[in-house]
Amino acid sequence: MKETLGELGESELLRRLSRFAPPGQLSDDSAALESDPRPIVVNTDVLVDGIHFSDVSTKPSDVGWRAVAANLSDLAASGAISVDGITVALVAPGETPWCWVEGVYTGLRAALDAYGGVILGGDCSKGSQRLLSITALGRLGPLRLHRGDAKPGDILVTSGPHGLSRLGLAILQNDQALHGIDLPDALRTAAVNQHQRPIPRLAALQDLLNCKPESLPWRAGGTDSSDGLLAAIQGLCSSSECGAVLDEKLLPHSNDWPSGKLWNRWCLAGGEDFELVLSLPEAWAQRWFDRQPQSRQIGWITAEKNMIRWRHSRQLIDTEGFDHFRTTPTV
Amino acid sequence: MKETLGELGESELLRRLSRFAPPGQLSDDSAALESDPRPIVVNTDVLVDGIHFSDVSTKPSDVGWRAVAANLSDLAASGAISVDGITVALVAPGETPWCWVEGVYTGLRAALDAYGGVILGGDCSKGSQRLLSITALGRLGPLRLHRGDAKPGDILVTSGPHGLSRLGLAILQNDQALHGIDLPDALRTAAVNQHQRPIPRLAALQDLLNCKPESLPWRAGGTDSSDGLLAAIQGLCSSSECGAVLDEKLLPHSNDWPSGKLWNRWCLAGGEDFELVLSLPEAWAQRWFDRQPQSRQIGWITAEKNMIRWRHSRQLIDTEGFDHFRTTPTV
Repeated sequence: MKETLGELGESELLRRLSRFAPPGQLSDDSAALESDPRPIVVNTDVLVDGIHFSDVSTKPSDVGWRAVAANLSDLAASGAISVDGITVALVAPGETPWCWVEGVYTGLRAALDAYGGVILGGDCSKGSQRLLSITALGRLGPLRLHRGDAKPGDILVTSGPHGLSRLGLAILQNDQALHGIDLPDALRTAAVNQHQRPIPRLAALQDLLNCKPESLPWRAGGTDSSDGLLAAIQGLCSSSECGAVLDEKLLPHSNDWPSGKLWNRWCLAGGEDFELVLSLPEAWAQRWFDRQPQSRQIGWITAEKNMIRWRHSRQLIDTEGFDHFRTTPTV
Repeated sequence: MKETLGELGESELLRRLSRFAPPGQLSDDSAALESDPRPIVVNTDVLVDGIHFSDVSTKPSDVGWRAVAANLSDLAASGAISVDGITVALVAPGETPWCWVEGVYTGLRAALDAYGGVILGGDCSKGSQRLLSITALGRLGPLRLHRGDAKPGDILVTSGPHGLSRLGLAILQNDQALHGIDLPDALRTAAVNQHQRPIPRLAALQDLLNCKPESLPWRAGGTDSSDGLLAAIQGLCSSSECGAVLDEKLLPHSNDWPSGKLWNRWCLAGGEDFELVLSLPEAWAQRWFDRQPQSRQIGWITAEKNMIRWRHSRQLIDTEGFDHFRTTPTV
């Protein structure tokens, strides 16, 4: 009996593939290579038409921007302080208009001009479906952030609000869930911007490095929320063999975010927020909040392995309940 | 009127894309990044089902091996002396059997175990077509090989025979062109091996570095013959604003290679040979021939910009005449 990839699911596939790499090598957002004066950090992300973008919700220049932002977000979540650039593998059918490719590269270049780095190289091929595979290279600062470095007692923090990208997608798709809901114009604009032009949090990471209390060692747990806030917290807890308590009142959403079940779900599991999700000693977290007004405490790290609970009810946060959101097309 | 990628063709597409990168950045097989004690060299290659491989001619483990070999060949042709590893973006439909993916990764790992490096990281996504996008990272030795560094008077050399991979493909496809031709068993075996398990020429490059005459500077022109021997020579000539004279008697094929027009064409334009093609000062070339019995002189570099001629007839080598081989499916 042949098992298919669809039957395995992504996490089992990744678990099996990790056996082909050195132990622990695939457990972080990116890999580090020795180099003086600063180690090099490298990350690969692939974006496929119909899965990660579509003509309905994403202009060609936004496809390029998002591809760079997704990669640089992983670099920031690994501790990168500068970007060398990217290599770009472009696959597309022969009937693809040049103006689509031109738009994509205009977006790639705009994001690189904004956050650093150049197009270093790449490859092109014909294929049945449009896709981009980007590899980004940057330099580590003094702190190599690992998913597995969270510790019980740490404060769980994030660099910004969550759910906006998912709302932006719903607006662009004219999603039925929004019919009859009167959203503030500012929220609509912020959501669409966040979906089309997400910001890799390199500046927030630099600020974090600048404000470490001298008495503390260079140790923090970290990842980004590209797969959603809850998935990021699960990744930290699972790699660090810890748990977490989240405070319902501290869910990190924008000020004008509506209340209700759908909105909490989009905040926790909407995905593609590209914010830093960090596990920090309290003194360091406090300094970061003072310097980064967008940053938020969302909970605490506990010693209860893989248990992620609400603060007041102590109820486990039912990750299954969010899984169907991950199978919602995110385009 | 919208131009499509199919109308543009690959070389015009690459020319247009190069405008988005720093000047000259995309003219070599790979990019170099500053790093001590040795610069890092990085290269991305994409392999698409139905274009670069197929179930007919390529076992899953050979797909993995060839993907690594193609990338490491580019690193060798840039002057790399060691390999750090690769990142792997895997795209495949949900119905793909796990055993196909397992085979591909077994081949990736076997090639890395043979030539150095590990799987550093990567990404997976669903998609309509199987493909691999690999980024390889290695360290430069004392010589950064550039396509644009050939000089008139240089000897044109290659690290081995050409055409075997194209013959291997024809054998695996039971190509009509071979019907009624009695090929030696040794040639058949060598051809199929060369197609399924090509060897990136890192050792030949290391040997070249070891035998440079002290009186000469670190300067040579270089590329690899992944797109065919003639395309490699054209690349050197065009980037270096030179020409070349090839000697019909020195066409680099294996000893038991049949004679005839088809066989010369496969030697010159068959592709996927993954040999080094270098432009060297004569004294350096001579030392390399002495140490590398497989290496061959194939001609000379001239000052006649973009003119590639036969030695005795002085006739231009009609590249158009070979173009239809490049549109032959190479799977």
